[in-house]
Amino acid sequence: MKPSIKLILFILCLPVVVMAQQSSDVVDLKKHKVVIQFNDADSVSQSRVVLQVQNVKAAWPNAEVEVVCLAGGLDLLMTNNSKASKAVAEWSAKGVIFAACNNTMKMRKVKKEDLLTQAVVVPAAIVELSQKQEEGWSYFRGGK
Amino acid sequence: MKPSIKLILFILCLPVVVMAQQSSDVVDLKKHKVVIQFNDADSVSQSRVVLQVQNVKAAWPNAEVEVVCLAGGLDLLMTNNSKASKAVAEWSAKGVIFAACNNTMKMRKVKKEDLLTQAVVVPAAIVELSQKQEEGWSYFRGGK
Amino acid sequence: MKPSIKLILFILCLPVVVMAQQSSDVVDLKKHKVVIQFNDADSVSQSRVVLQVQNVKAAWPNAEVEVVCLAGGLDLLMTNNSKASKAVAEWSAKGVIFAACNNTMKMRKVKKEDLLTQAVVVPAAIVELSQKQEEGWSYFRGGK
Repeated sequence: MKPSIKLILFILCLPVVVMAQQSSDVVDLKKHKVVIQFNDADSVSQSRVVLQVQNVKAAWPNAEVEVVCLAGGLDLLMTNNSKASKAVAEWSAKGVIFAACNNTMKMRKVKKEDLLTQAVVVPAAIVELSQKQEEGWSYFRGGK
Repeated sequence: MKPSIKLILFILCLPVVVMAQQSSDVVDLKKHKVVIQFNDADSVSQSRVVLQVQNVKAAWPNAEVEVVCLAGGLDLLMTNNSKASKAVAEWSAKGVIFAACNNTMKMRKVKKEDLLTQAVVVPAAIVELSQKQEEGWSYFRGGK
Repeated sequence: MKPSIKLILFILCLPVVVMAQQSSDVVDLKKHKVVIQFNDADSVSQSRVVLQVQNVKAAWPNAEVEVVCLAGGLDLLMTNNSKASKAVAEWSAKGVIFAACNNTMKMRKVKKEDLLTQAVVVPAAIVELSQKQEEGWSYFRGGK
């Protein structure tokens, strides 16, 4: 009878084993999503915002991250004005979205071809930021 | 009997017509709500925040939008300091709420009669902004 | 036997008493939670952010409030740079959390012993702010 008791004990313990495993890698299973509002043109703010992307990806490698650039913040994504184009390219390759506000582009007479190839154009920053929050993303104001 | 059959067919089809109408403007039925924190007194920020209101209403005509003005941002709603009083009046007439922080008013010795007639006074900007988010509104930081 | 019965009745009635008390102050039981992003070093912003804490606690005495200090905002929590250390100590004693971003600390070469004793160190401000929002906290950008 002994093996049978062992088997019963094993079966009874299975849910506990599964639950223990789930709790051990609970961090990787949780889907974090962060949308960043970025308004500033200066080089300190530009390098700061890509550092903030790095910080969130270091803690949550699977997090979805989107940087929405408007007003002066569009400079981060302009070929001639970006002080962090290398970091934008690197993080973009790892799935981070860099979005340019089309309303800002029209106001500042910036064309799609003036932007880094990684930039994605969205119709309006305020709409993009709101929509992401409606879908459960957290908000962060990027920059210095 | 013909008219009667037509009537019956019409009545039977009514729900289909209503459903078709609903699905055709499903975008307009979705209720977007955006609350904007506005802290800045300068004229560029003032004109920028009303442009941001315009941008969100252009994309989502039925969106509920509230601009919460605190600190220097109160200037947007002060008769003597507002650089965008015409736009405030226009958007207010279309249902946008412009809220003045009463804590800021006390600190800056601003009275209700110093404000544009469209301004609504709320006890505290931080409470107003938090409450709106608790009710499912998205957050945006307005200005330049 | 009488005292024993009284005791049993008392114990049986305890949950009812507790529930009655809870329902009587239902307004206070609503759990408001506000997380504040604070980036600015200047003294006006420092005094402003503790005033904003005061404003939210005045309206919602039971609210959970956390001020997340990053970049220049770390000054609020540095013994040598804080312009509001007394207010930080007072609000901390009343349960407000003042969190210092460890990424900022490393970048600015600030050590735990350079901080006010009330400061709590968190690994990354952006992660802390996002996590709180995931848990249902509202967001506010603190300062002037």
